[in-house]
Amino acid sequence: MAELNGNLLVAQSGGPTCAINASIVGVIQEAGRHDCIEEIYGGLNGVYGILREDIIDINDEKAKTIDMLKYSPAAALGTCRYKIDFKKKPEKAAKDMDRLFQIFEAHNIRYFFYAGGNDSQDTSHKIHLEAIKRGFELHVIGIPKTIDNDLPHTDYCPGYGSVVKYNATTVMEVGIDVGCMATDDGSCCIIEVMGRSAGWIAAGTVIAKRKPEDPPHIILLPEIVFEEEKFLAKVKEVVSQYKYCIVVAGEGIKNASGNEIGADDKLVDAFGHKLLSGAADKLAQIVQNNLGTKTRTVKLGYAQRAAGHFASLTDIKNAVMVGGAAVKAAVEGKSGFMVKIIRNVITDDNGKQRIEWGTDLQPLEDIANAERLVPRDWLSEDGFMPNEKMVEYARPLVEGELPLPIKDGLPCYYRLEKSLIEKKLPPMEA
Amino acid sequence: MAELNGNLLVAQSGGPTCAINASIVGVIQEAGRHDCIEEIYGGLNGVYGILREDIIDINDEKAKTIDMLKYSPAAALGTCRYKIDFKKKPEKAAKDMDRLFQIFEAHNIRYFFYAGGNDSQDTSHKIHLEAIKRGFELHVIGIPKTIDNDLPHTDYCPGYGSVVKYNATTVMEVGIDVGCMATDDGSCCIIEVMGRSAGWIAAGTVIAKRKPEDPPHIILLPEIVFEEEKFLAKVKEVVSQYKYCIVVAGEGIKNASGNEIGADDKLVDAFGHKLLSGAADKLAQIVQNNLGTKTRTVKLGYAQRAAGHFASLTDIKNAVMVGGAAVKAAVEGKSGFMVKIIRNVITDDNGKQRIEWGTDLQPLEDIANAERLVPRDWLSEDGFMPNEKMVEYARPLVEGELPLPIKDGLPCYYRLEKSLIEKKLPPMEA
Repeated sequence: MAELNGNLLVAQSGGPTCAINASIVGVIQEAGRHDCIEEIYGGLNGVYGILREDIIDINDEKAKTIDMLKYSPAAALGTCRYKIDFKKKPEKAAKDMDRLFQIFEAHNIRYFFYAGGNDSQDTSHKIHLEAIKRGFELHVIGIPKTIDNDLPHTDYCPGYGSVVKYNATTVMEVGIDVGCMATDDGSCCIIEVMGRSAGWIAAGTVIAKRKPEDPPHIILLPEIVFEEEKFLAKVKEVVSQYKYCIVVAGEGIKNASGNEIGADDKLVDAFGHKLLSGAADKLAQIVQNNLGTKTRTVKLGYAQRAAGHFASLTDIKNAVMVGGAAVKAAVEGKSGFMVKIIRNVITDDNGKQRIEWGTDLQPLEDIANAERLVPRDWLSEDGFMPNEKMVEYARPLVEGELPLPIKDGLPCYYRLEKSLIEKKLPPMEA
Repeated sequence: MAELNGNLLVAQSGGPTCAINASIVGVIQEAGRHDCIEEIYGGLNGVYGILREDIIDINDEKAKTIDMLKYSPAAALGTCRYKIDFKKKPEKAAKDMDRLFQIFEAHNIRYFFYAGGNDSQDTSHKIHLEAIKRGFELHVIGIPKTIDNDLPHTDYCPGYGSVVKYNATTVMEVGIDVGCMATDDGSCCIIEVMGRSAGWIAAGTVIAKRKPEDPPHIILLPEIVFEEEKFLAKVKEVVSQYKYCIVVAGEGIKNASGNEIGADDKLVDAFGHKLLSGAADKLAQIVQNNLGTKTRTVKLGYAQRAAGHFASLTDIKNAVMVGGAAVKAAVEGKSGFMVKIIRNVITDDNGKQRIEWGTDLQPLEDIANAERLVPRDWLSEDGFMPNEKMVEYARPLVEGELPLPIKDGLPCYYRLEKSLIEKKLPPMEA
């Protein structure tokens, strides 16, 4: 088929990660290789900014900056949690969609790449369908990004490998710390990690366990109903055995009635998700009040998804690969797909195994708003510990460290200059 | 004077750090150079374990393990918060002191090195005085260790450089993360760090600020009375200017009536210190309820003092130096001193400055239970930001990264085998 000539627009959405910039770098560097792609634009703060025509010319940026963005956490183009919601706000959504295509038309955007999680893939899917409906030639490819690792069909989501590397390291370190304190009646530490409904982040910390006695000793996933009695019995057992107990808890763990034990009902985000805080503190109270065991908490919060100083090189390389694959697919005329990661296990002549990472495409409609949870058979019978299947899955994702530039003992992270292109439309109505 | 022949006992006390093992390595490696030191023993879990005659023979450990301990966080010999308290428990204290000297005598301990903070230096001082009183020839030297950095007379306390390096990096990373999210009404993140009454850890994160607009935007120290109105006004000002605000809060910040705003009255440690939790959560409530600004929290807890994966090489080298200096002093016949770190600023012919670190001795009585706070003139007038004096002080402490061994993408930390020597006394009475 004839190649589609026009400009490229790439944007980021949802919670940032250590790897989302690497995917954008993959898009930009691959786009440079295709003549059919004329201008390379970046949309600031995802759809939220694009609707305001906040678009930058990426060719105005230093090549060095673009290359080093690979190793910089967070979202260099800025991100958002803005949703085009035809269900709840049909009129606003229709208005937004009109505005979006006016902008695409005004700037001759023919290639659109959106990096994000479930909600962002849903947005990409809607834009793809709308383009067809309008007969506007636009190639839309979604790029997976979420530390939650809950997108279906892809081996994993870029960003996940880095958060597991950092969190597992933190578990090791907190474990040695707590384990070396002499206490007559033992001690406990609860490490709260992200993961609202999928427990991939908590489950991944199992790789910190090199020996059976190593922490983490208990991992609580949102997928498994939290039962206080069973939990307390397990903590008691671990403390009596090792004198200390390290618990990793996903922020979204729920009780039998389906309520998150750390829920803060006051707060709800733009997608109607309940915002959580304090699963660890709740658990600490439970342990302290029932067992009298000294219990402390660690809440990594945003630090875990932004920890570029100890990100996974494998994760970053795959994120770049995914961005490049998105451009190749679009140039080939594909639209309405998300790039997914494929894991190929290669066994050499000596029987030694290595992993080769590849990509493929999955229709966006298969991804949008779907959610992949940790399989039950990847966990111990009591549900308190992921098994060998989880270890085999997670370990390859954390391999390799970044060649991070350091100045005066602290990391150097790069930022875009962000020179806005001339706006061609009247300002958006409020 | 004639050298004192006998055995060496080294132990660790108080909260672990990334550098306390390095000081023990310094002691062990220097001790090997002196014939007057016969056996090199390690006391497990500080005075708590020594009273139980839990003593290991360090010469039974692999030399490789001992050397690599430099780069392993936490306390390889184990630590404790056990206090010989003549004020509150005079009888128990006298009993403990008797037992301690029975053990010193039984194992011919003539060199005693104790690494710890204020309380541990106090313990060392008491042991030193008791030895004189009893006419028992014992050389006691204290080794400074505390991330709190609140010991007087020493330039800084080993462990502090590493916690500042990790925390400042975390502030940078969380800052980029929060700053890249598009929000109409701004957002705020409160990062809670350790520091009960001294704000050195919080203040040190100022080095993350390479440009005026960089985070942290507000630093709250326990030394400065927390005033809600002023704090809210400052957050509002920062959010309106930068759309986001990163606050670093020392866990022990206090209000006008001297109460810690994050205090949890239920919990008190062995020294009667009130245990804290939740300064960040309290602040988040205050911001959210009064300004309606989306506010999240990060509570690094034990993770910050155990983060060996990004510790400061300068800090580790100085910790080794301090341990070696302690042995040299003891062999020279000194007792009742703590080794302190001296900072010498050397200006070369080109006017370029570099720092040479050295050591000296300070009588333990000058250290025990004394506390050094952040000087008021190291802070801005409004008290919300350390100034250039703090930056100049803290920056050199974080320089250099460790040659940390990594396996399967995660750090390798070393542990002692801990083969106990034969006990010579009856078990301690309860």
